[in-house]
Amino acid sequence: MHLILIGGGTSSGKTTIAKQITSQLNNQNVYTFSHDNYYYDLANLSPKEIKKINFDHPDAIDSSRLISDVKDILNKQEIYIPDYDFISHRRIQGEFIHNRYDVIILEGIFALYFPELVKLASLKVFVDTDADLRLARRIDRDINERGFTINEVLTQYIETVKPMHDIFIEGTKKQADIIIPGEKKFDRVLIMINGYLKELLG
Amino acid sequence: MHLILIGGGTSSGKTTIAKQITSQLNNQNVYTFSHDNYYYDLANLSPKEIKKINFDHPDAIDSSRLISDVKDILNKQEIYIPDYDFISHRRIQGEFIHNRYDVIILEGIFALYFPELVKLASLKVFVDTDADLRLARRIDRDINERGFTINEVLTQYIETVKPMHDIFIEGTKKQADIIIPGEKKFDRVLIMINGYLKELLG
Repeated sequence: MHLILIGGGTSSGKTTIAKQITSQLNNQNVYTFSHDNYYYDLANLSPKEIKKINFDHPDAIDSSRLISDVKDILNKQEIYIPDYDFISHRRIQGEFIHNRYDVIILEGIFALYFPELVKLASLKVFVDTDADLRLARRIDRDINERGFTINEVLTQYIETVKPMHDIFIEGTKKQADIIIPGEKKFDRVLIMINGYLKELLG
Repeated sequence: MHLILIGGGTSSGKTTIAKQITSQLNNQNVYTFSHDNYYYDLANLSPKEIKKINFDHPDAIDSSRLISDVKDILNKQEIYIPDYDFISHRRIQGEFIHNRYDVIILEGIFALYFPELVKLASLKVFVDTDADLRLARRIDRDINERGFTINEVLTQYIETVKPMHDIFIEGTKKQADIIIPGEKKFDRVLIMINGYLKELLG
């Protein structure tokens, strides 16, 4: 059982590369998830209090549960992985996962942030995409998939997304085994990662 | 026959990774060289004139000969590759290379700069090392291997190495298939590149 961590800024292309790695590993059992599943449930907070939460700070994530769950998966335990609704800010129905995976991929902006996770990983990837392109993609996603207004997106971006990126995410690039330019096709990188995993998985 | 290009700033670790790729490919015929072999011979210039040459500008390199030679190698021609003496600034005795290589590796600060070379490459790597670490390594090399004084090294670094890096080299990162952090061990990257080349070479 191997852990792959895929970090990088907001809308850098982490999910895309995770999916493509998975589709290449068609003989292997791969489970992919995001640390976004581990945001704290805010059911007990008022809308006003929720507005004050900095979702772009690693403390918004229940990292101790995340790390403990990752360890359990690596130890081939069956576990329950929560899910999260970004609109209501509540934990929602998650899923039980079995213990027959060969590879687990954890992706998210903080994937390379928590030292305990970094230590457990067989491969650490940072997807490096220009900040302006990431902003453009994020605006598109937040407006069309998450129902935000452009003003809400830009305010959040300027007030928390960007400053937290600069403090907590950009530096995690140094933890990566490889950095992937996020603006172009991943074809060659995929062959490389595939070759690496073949070697690992024997 | 496949071309691998390894770019990155001065003293970023390009030669080291090139050597390590070569030593991993022990069943393959690999030829590694640098575009530094293609600096123009300055025998006809006075020491004063030579001092004015900007060796950190891509125009200091005979790129048309370099590109033509790379094409010839890829077309399995036997060719003569020049060498260069950094102290006298003259072309010196080079070597004939045979046409039985499987892989050629071209490394150098401008390896990803010339569009014609980039088009020919099967794999493009950028070694990304912090500028201060690169400066520290360069000072060590230029003083201990090339006989410069610390003042000479720093003056060249500030006047040409750094500004030319920012203009001509940093941006070539965007041409890379993968970016390798140059501050740590290359073990995992080597397995990945090896896996990729195995795929290519069948």
